[in-house]
Amino acid sequence: MPRPDHAAAIVAIGSEMLSPLRSDTNSLWITERLEAVGIRVVRKSIVGDDVGAIGAELDAAAASAPLLFTTGGLGPTADDVTVAAVSRWLGVELRRDAAFVAKIRARFEARGVRMPAVNEKQADFIVGARVLENPRGTAPGFWAAGRGVEIVVLPGVPSEMKEIMTDSVLPELAARAKGESIARRVLRIGGTGESAVEELVEPIYRKWAGHPVTILAAPGEVQLHLAVRAAPERAGEILAAMESDFREALGPRVFGRDSEDLATSVGNLLRRERKSLAVAESCTGGMISSLLTDVPGSSEYFLGGVVSYANSAKEQFLGVSPATLAAHGAVSSETALEMARGARERFGADLAAAVTGIAGPDGGSEAKPVGTVFLALADGGGAIWRKRFFGGDRTVVRRAASLAALELIRRRVAGTLAHE
Amino acid sequence: MPRPDHAAAIVAIGSEMLSPLRSDTNSLWITERLEAVGIRVVRKSIVGDDVGAIGAELDAAAASAPLLFTTGGLGPTADDVTVAAVSRWLGVELRRDAAFVAKIRARFEARGVRMPAVNEKQADFIVGARVLENPRGTAPGFWAAGRGVEIVVLPGVPSEMKEIMTDSVLPELAARAKGESIARRVLRIGGTGESAVEELVEPIYRKWAGHPVTILAAPGEVQLHLAVRAAPERAGEILAAMESDFREALGPRVFGRDSEDLATSVGNLLRRERKSLAVAESCTGGMISSLLTDVPGSSEYFLGGVVSYANSAKEQFLGVSPATLAAHGAVSSETALEMARGARERFGADLAAAVTGIAGPDGGSEAKPVGTVFLALADGGGAIWRKRFFGGDRTVVRRAASLAALELIRRRVAGTLAHE
Repeated sequence: MPRPDHAAAIVAIGSEMLSPLRSDTNSLWITERLEAVGIRVVRKSIVGDDVGAIGAELDAAAASAPLLFTTGGLGPTADDVTVAAVSRWLGVELRRDAAFVAKIRARFEARGVRMPAVNEKQADFIVGARVLENPRGTAPGFWAAGRGVEIVVLPGVPSEMKEIMTDSVLPELAARAKGESIARRVLRIGGTGESAVEELVEPIYRKWAGHPVTILAAPGEVQLHLAVRAAPERAGEILAAMESDFREALGPRVFGRDSEDLATSVGNLLRRERKSLAVAESCTGGMISSLLTDVPGSSEYFLGGVVSYANSAKEQFLGVSPATLAAHGAVSSETALEMARGARERFGADLAAAVTGIAGPDGGSEAKPVGTVFLALADGGGAIWRKRFFGGDRTVVRRAASLAALELIRRRVAGTLAHE
Repeated sequence: MPRPDHAAAIVAIGSEMLSPLRSDTNSLWITERLEAVGIRVVRKSIVGDDVGAIGAELDAAAASAPLLFTTGGLGPTADDVTVAAVSRWLGVELRRDAAFVAKIRARFEARGVRMPAVNEKQADFIVGARVLENPRGTAPGFWAAGRGVEIVVLPGVPSEMKEIMTDSVLPELAARAKGESIARRVLRIGGTGESAVEELVEPIYRKWAGHPVTILAAPGEVQLHLAVRAAPERAGEILAAMESDFREALGPRVFGRDSEDLATSVGNLLRRERKSLAVAESCTGGMISSLLTDVPGSSEYFLGGVVSYANSAKEQFLGVSPATLAAHGAVSSETALEMARGARERFGADLAAAVTGIAGPDGGSEAKPVGTVFLALADGGGAIWRKRFFGGDRTVVRRAASLAALELIRRRVAGTLAHE
């Protein structure tokens, strides 16, 4: 495999990150900062504190990128072997730096503590490497070169790693970059499947073939991730032109970009149109309200909601008629419509949405299997309903139904959903 | 490097996971399940959707473990190249399975949709590999062998990956295991800080020094993670004895174990005591209802909730008096108490909880800064309230307030919270 320029690989070192309980988050921060100086991360890996395993990992990393980063394993204890592993991999020696031992000792003494003997190890320097000062901790980092790559060795403690990167590593990488950067944009698409999105954007893909576009399915949405590498101003221009082409192909299916989620997009539309909203939820059990109110400032347009889990609550709080419930059941278009109309009237809202369905695992029947959901929407123009079916477990059905309700609200407020 | 037995390596495939925005979480779940059958994950890595990069990664993974897992890259689009990369690495062909094409087409048609042409690719099978059925999606998984390793190829969608692992992979690995296993238990503790928990369990830590115990702070709770590696029956015995010691030290602070979260624990107690519950939420905006109804079978005890975001909704749906709102404000013990009493009466519930507070970023004052929350609880024995302060952003405050309300309900129903 040819090794790309301006590419980096990150190796996170620490046996604890191979347990089910912890994950490596340092690499996300490093990736973001590297992209800003035009370097793309092409590979990330996690290995335990083992000299052999670290060496094997450096082999693999060096085959994929000319710039390697390691995080973790710089502590004083017996498990911390990163410095030994890197120096062995490079084929250079370690040398204990007497002045640095004295510095560590002074650091401990300043806190009235005698330096434990094990800490001397943190003064073992990789011969030929640049030592990266660590103002927040005892273990320094290193910037070494050899075997056709550069290796930046960083501590695993996030605050220490970030300070060393910011002070000693990123400025130099920025100086070398001479103007290249990566600009990114995420376009978020609602109410459309992954393959349908692909068909719509296929010609645009081809037009911008030089710039990578990734299509991703996420709960309730499909995302297009665009990335442009160029000089900073130029990257922004290309990205804007790409975004414009994709938006033209996708039309009102695009509900937001980057961190703008469906609830934020609905909120922005309601604020712009000066409309208020209420919701009535059965199977989603408060999730729609919770998504809406997670947005700062939502009290401007969101009046509230009723979680009418029991049938008695549907009657008491929303005025659903017992006859409707008896004739059609709680999970029906008729009940959904009465819930929406009742919520609109009682909250005094411009618009109200309602959801009733069967989230499972129990409660399904042949006519209405688990995953059957009725959505309704009432506003000044009347009321509509939709029947949907969502595959998956209880959590998946509830989430999908909540997001479908938000998408229905969005299209109605945006004026792209007619009443029929 | 010698390759350990009972070891696995996981390769997550997807260019989006190399961006600063997304990380691989599938590997945490896989690691947990593999440990239960005595298999330790020794290496994890993430690469982009590139045939060459995936091949290089499989080389490195195969050098460190005899059992490899890949997740992701099984979709229908042009970026999805995992199946092609694995078959090339193994040196075997791909063959399009006509019967499977028909099956995918039928799946689309059942939803009234024509199969997009791109989806045919998902019927390309690795020759010689076992096909792992995917009941939740179109793309099947594979279990292939070659070049001295076994490779399990899984989709990246978590629900699909988990179902294939649970149905088709883990039972076979468990059958092979016969020797050592790792038994794990998580004890979940509510309403107590991390250092207070540490003080309570310190002597127990020392008694079981041979077995690792990790203490972890999570939103609304503290967790003790116990892990015992031994022969399967022996591991269970040791773990049970450890759990019993820790429970004795912690008493009713322990609300659950393993996947039993606070909402599940509250539900179990309500079911046991045959009590019904309703909630009234302001700043938590539906999150308490949503957490409660995420539990299967919650309709047995949960009647419903009101999200009274606007003051008018507090009056209309809960009977909070305008005089109380005018005199004390919406964020006050008086309003919280009226919300709880109103919800209890109108839902006809045995017990009702209410929350009102300032989640931010706006709305704070010197007397009631952002993070100020009033909780109230009404039942047949009367009503109580608590004032709490939570540091953090909007999302953190809302989550902390929701979990504090659940903990208050739990202690009241369990009889460990007196009325004062």
